[in-house]
Parts: sequence; C-alpha cells; structure tokens
Amino acid sequence: MIDRLVVVGVGLIGGSFALALKQAGVVRSVAGLGREPAAMARALALGIVDEVCETPQQAMRGADLVLLAAPVGQTGAILASLLPYLEPHTVLTDAGSTKCDVVASARAALGERIRQFVPGHPIAGSESNGPDAARAELYRGKKTVLTPLPENPAGDVERVAAAWRHCGALIHTLSPQDHDRVFAAVSHLPHLLAYALVDDIAAKPHAGLLFQYAASGFRDFTRIAGSSPEMWRDISLANREALLTELDAYLAQLTSLRATLAAADGRGLEAVFANAQRARREWIEAIEAGSPPPPQNQDIE
Amino acid sequence: MIDRLVVVGVGLIGGSFALALKQAGVVRSVAGLGREPAAMARALALGIVDEVCETPQQAMRGADLVLLAAPVGQTGAILASLLPYLEPHTVLTDAGSTKCDVVASARAALGERIRQFVPGHPIAGSESNGPDAARAELYRGKKTVLTPLPENPAGDVERVAAAWRHCGALIHTLSPQDHDRVFAAVSHLPHLLAYALVDDIAAKPHAGLLFQYAASGFRDFTRIAGSSPEMWRDISLANREALLTELDAYLAQLTSLRATLAAADGRGLEAVFANAQRARREWIEAIEAGSPPPPQNQDIE
Repeated sequence: MIDRLVVVGVGLIGGSFALALKQAGVVRSVAGLGREPAAMARALALGIVDEVCETPQQAMRGADLVLLAAPVGQTGAILASLLPYLEPHTVLTDAGSTKCDVVASARAALGERIRQFVPGHPIAGSESNGPDAARAELYRGKKTVLTPLPENPAGDVERVAAAWRHCGALIHTLSPQDHDRVFAAVSHLPHLLAYALVDDIAAKPHAGLLFQYAASGFRDFTRIAGSSPEMWRDISLANREALLTELDAYLAQLTSLRATLAAADGRGLEAVFANAQRARREWIEAIEAGSPPPPQNQDIE
Repeated sequence: MIDRLVVVGVGLIGGSFALALKQAGVVRSVAGLGREPAAMARALALGIVDEVCETPQQAMRGADLVLLAAPVGQTGAILASLLPYLEPHTVLTDAGSTKCDVVASARAALGERIRQFVPGHPIAGSESNGPDAARAELYRGKKTVLTPLPENPAGDVERVAAAWRHCGALIHTLSPQDHDRVFAAVSHLPHLLAYALVDDIAAKPHAGLLFQYAASGFRDFTRIAGSSPEMWRDISLANREALLTELDAYLAQLTSLRATLAAADGRGLEAVFANAQRARREWIEAIEAGSPPPPQNQDIE
C-alpha cells in the first residue's frame, strides 16, 4: 500500500498512473504538483489527485513514492526543488522517454541521494495531452522499462516495479544507454520524421490542396506529429547523440532508396518494400502472439 | 443501371467497387478477369463476381463498364489485351494511384479508342489486399478523383462518376499532372518513408530487440509499410519524377532538421514540431467539419 503518492505533472502520463493505482486500490492519497494551476485544478476535479500542492515542501511531507511526469528537460530543476524535503524512506521515479540524460540530471541534482531515484519509462502514450486524456487503462498490457542504478537498493526498485505492475504494466529492465539507443530508433526517429513531413507539406504554397487529398495512410503516418512539441523538443535534445546516429542511418538509407528510384530499378524498390512488409508482418504477428520474454543485457552495438 | 460490369483484378479495390454497386442495386452482373485463378475463385465464392472469365474476349462481350484494378504497371498490357474486343458503347476506367503514366500507357495501347477510357483514382484503401479484404463500404464518404481526357465524351465521364457516387464516393476532378503531384506528396512519399524506416530497422543487428520495444506510435507510422510491395513498386516507378521532387524536398527538410538537432537548437526544433502539430490539427479539424468543396484548376506549382 502506498500511503502518499506524489505526481509531478498530472497530464496523460502522470494522471493515468494515479488513476490506475487508485483503481487498483493500492494508494491512500495522491498529491499533485505542477506548474499549470488550470491543469492542477482539472486533475483535482477529475479525481486524479486528492490534493493540489502549492510547494515542494507541502507535497513531499510523508511521501512514499514520487513520480516525475513532466517533460524530461525539467528533471534536474524539479529534483533540485524536491531535494530539501526528501525524506529517507521516499522513493523517486520518473516516466521520461529518455534515460541517460535524466540520470545525469538526477545525479547532478541529488548527489548521494541518487540512490533514492529509480529511473523508469512506461511505453504507452497518446498524441492527446493533459489531465483529460488520463485513463486508468493506459498502461494495461504495456511495457514499463526500468533502468535501475547501481546505487538503488533492490527493495526500492521492487517498490517502483510493483506500482507499475499494479497499473497492469509488464516490467522490463535495460541499461540507460541501451534504453536510449533502442528508443532513438523505434520512437524518437519516427516522431522526427513525422514532424518533418507535416512541416514540409505545410510550408508548400499549395499546402491547402495537398491536405485536402491526404487520406487515412497520411493520418496514421503523421499521428505522432500531433504530440506535444515541448515534450519532443526535450526528448530530442536529451537523446541527441543516439538520435543523430539513427537519423544519419536513416538519411543514408533514404539516399540509397532515392538512387534506386532515380535509376528506375523496380527490382531494387520491390526488394526494399517486400523486406519491410515482411519484417513488419512478423513484428505484428509476434505482438499478437504475445511478446517473448525480455532479453537481458543483449548486446545492441 | 449497369448491365454488365467487368472488373480486372478483384482484390480490395476492384472487389469493393463490385460489392458497392451490387449493394446499391445498380449492376445486373459482374464479370471478373485476373491473373490469379485462386483469387478469382475466391471472388466468385464471396459473391463479388458472378462469373470468372478465362479470356478478355469472354469478359468484354456486352460490357458496359470495365474497371481496371490491377497494379498500374500492368495498365498498358491489360488495355492492349482488351482492345480487340472493345465494343463501341463500353466505357473503360481504372483505379490506379498514378495518372500521367496510366494515361500515357492507355494512349499507347488504345490509340483513338482512348476516348473510351476515363482515368480515375478512388482515395481509399487499406494495407490488406485480396478479395477477402473487399467490402461494400470502402468508398463511402471518400473522394474519387477523376482526371478526364479531352477526348472523353461528357456522357462517359458522367457514367463513371455516377458509378462511384453509387459507391458513396465524392467526385473530385483534377488534371493527371496535378493529381500526380498531389499524391506524390501526401501518399507516395509517406509510403516510401515508412518502407525505408522498417527496412532500416530490420537490417540492424539488434533488430529483434528494437522491434520488441516498438509501440503504437511505430505501428501507426509504419502501417502503410504493410502495403503490397508490387503495387507500390509500380506506383513509385509510374510517378517517379514527381516522387523524386517530393523526396528531394523532404531530404532537404530532414537535413536542415538534423543541423538544428546537431546544434542543440531547442527553439528551432520546437518551432518545427509546433508548426507541424498545428498544421495537422487544422487538417484534422477540417476533415471533422466536412471537407470544403474541391478547388478546380488551382495552381499547384
């Protein structure tokens, strides 16, 4: 049982965590802390939080578990503001989409109290934001990746894992480095590509005509370009090196595909398309069959 | 009333056209022609066609309307095979995703009988293929673009338009050139980008790990990479010049975004992301409010 949960940032991610734990009956009270009074009031009205705190001091008193669910660029500042009121038994965790940068910010902010911070990342989301988008089911059947630190007591890691399991999530463990390289490829790069496409089209003089004929394929391809610009600015900056690596690989691939197209090499185009179609089908089939157990310490270089 | 409809290629597109016209009660009999006996037999079993024809001669006898719904690369060969049996009252049309190339192939194949060919493109689809994917509702509320030729009698254009209206489609008219430039940007390019991303990831040594953490954003972004490789090879080749133009613009945009990221220019990243988010939201709102009337002869240069 969590006597007092503090959620910093009560939007889609933090709000859904609170709602799921309430629904599971494993939390006595939820306190919310955030920079936008309107969002905090809305979270209170929706029953996501039981109390809106004005200050870190007020929030942290007696806190068992604190989830940071704000854009990752704010991690250091938020932790620094919490540190003076951090009680010895409190466990801090986060839901940030990047981990190396979050861990570095946390170390700088917390010093030796870093042992109380267990980094995490729930692999769930939506292009909708804010407390109204929060729902108790968001994490059900989804993965939550923890990237525990050498300093974390095993019991604290387990407390964080147990909370996510109560939300219905499956716990996976990766190093922060592996985490960031994986998500640069399968999440951060696609976001960049989708934003770039919509921005590219919107800038054309005949954008109105183009959007008129955009259909369901375009809608799905660009869904992630509806995501929060501030959140994705922070993620892009926080995972800049891994993202640049993936972006360069993609640019090379696209340049090669351009040459294949320019040469009217139908066989070459079909080979790329067929390989992609097959890989995607196998991926979908694996999802539908239920994922295999998570590999541990797999070399991703 | 269409006494005899011939559908060449009874997959998702051709099959859905036949089913919709049957459901509307405006067709007496549907004949199917295609290169895959198993698919033809399946279309017969599903009630999509009433008759499977072995030869163009058999199919074309007494045909009122013929829809070509095969990969666009086959247009010329199919029309050449139909020409000897083309009766004076028969109207030919197609459902190809490119139009300049289709028109050029049709002219070469049909000569002066080009007047009987009214090019079209229904803006609807799915990553599923084959007769089992066909459904009468596919075109309901969707656009069908016609790109009539100077040679087409107005009555023939109207017969094709009326058939699509019976499927529930909204008729738009563009020149073949404008059509191809529009769809290069909003359809063909996104397909290329999605195929390239999945192929890029599948080729990495740690692809298995990457796919394990790919989530709903990735699934939607890459949905169109589940489309038929042969069909998209043909589309890419048929619309190569317009697609290269769009691809080059996108590569330039992505290279510029790479420089913004490499410079850790958060303000620049957020500007691109926010512009894309806003443009996409306005587009979605326009769709939900009902599309504005189609612009005619709008300059898209």
